[in-house]
Amino acid sequence: MENCSMNQIDITGCRISLYPMKDDFASHILRSIKETDTTAVWQQTDLFSTLYRGEAASVIDAAAALFVNAYDPKTHLVGEFTFSKGCPGDLAGDAFLSGKHERPNHQQITAKGTFIVQCKYSFYVFGREDYMEEIAHIVSLADAMGLQPQSAHYVTLLSGTAAQLFAYFEQALAYAHEKLPHYVLEGTVSVNSPSLKEASLHE
Amino acid sequence: MENCSMNQIDITGCRISLYPMKDDFASHILRSIKETDTTAVWQQTDLFSTLYRGEAASVIDAAAALFVNAYDPKTHLVGEFTFSKGCPGDLAGDAFLSGKHERPNHQQITAKGTFIVQCKYSFYVFGREDYMEEIAHIVSLADAMGLQPQSAHYVTLLSGTAAQLFAYFEQALAYAHEKLPHYVLEGTVSVNSPSLKEASLHE
Repeated sequence: MENCSMNQIDITGCRISLYPMKDDFASHILRSIKETDTTAVWQQTDLFSTLYRGEAASVIDAAAALFVNAYDPKTHLVGEFTFSKGCPGDLAGDAFLSGKHERPNHQQITAKGTFIVQCKYSFYVFGREDYMEEIAHIVSLADAMGLQPQSAHYVTLLSGTAAQLFAYFEQALAYAHEKLPHYVLEGTVSVNSPSLKEASLHE
Repeated sequence: MENCSMNQIDITGCRISLYPMKDDFASHILRSIKETDTTAVWQQTDLFSTLYRGEAASVIDAAAALFVNAYDPKTHLVGEFTFSKGCPGDLAGDAFLSGKHERPNHQQITAKGTFIVQCKYSFYVFGREDYMEEIAHIVSLADAMGLQPQSAHYVTLLSGTAAQLFAYFEQALAYAHEKLPHYVLEGTVSVNSPSLKEASLHE
């Protein structure tokens, strides 16, 4: 199991699974993969997800772009993101640790990511007795960024624009990267859910 | 953030998000929720997931049934499962800790769950320095059950029938429930992925 390792290095990774809820899901996903600028990250697509690895800022840039590029006003789209401080074992990924923290998709994410998303996420810290305090700090960053964190079973809920949410993830992971030896952020980002429409009808 | 708590009790929970990749996803999900026997668990459906809480065996029984009932040979279906030793804060859930470990869907899961699934999962342990050893033990249980665990970035991959996979989850969580104060198992279960077809065409 490679979700951590004894000789960790500074590579960050993200697995992203896109779920466009439509018959024509496959071409929808492939189009978004193609439209995303991945010059700053190592990438691989498998049965479950697309995986980006590299510097934290570049990985979040690619992950955010993959979701924003898959957005379509008529489609209920969900993205599952697993961000983690990465593990060694693949030199192709390590080569992207250039120290440049490039974000080639940044402008596009800001321009396109104006739609409102709902998010649930959990932040996991390993090998630390004080992990609850670290989680509380990560949630406080969301509050400071206006994402209105709310508690639910096993997760925290957030709401804001796609661009805001991914800017928060960047800030949270920058903190984690500096302070924590091993962490995982599991986030689910949802847009155009029919449940949301039903909820507002009942208000 | 309620993904853990200082005064934990013995309640297990699971969030399940179903992604049937088709235009008519909403009725597909609702039908499966309706067909699942939830007499042994507390339940709630929100924007992201259906949540079951109660005794570990009963929660896995309901979660497995929800997936198996949503199976359809023509639909690419993905289920995201977050199992966790639960947290207090809701008495409705606690009332289901009867000590009976009921599995009202068991027969149906065994009968219907004969289709092959692909799974990626991660097992997370908190507040323990020896968390790597616990992860290794959980993976060794999958090996013993013939699910052929393979390492990938941030996850372990498994393959087997749906019934086998959920039987393994039950075994893994029984171990975790007994030995560990706080854990999360994040699993993604996929069936009928077109990527799988492409992969076998290239073999």
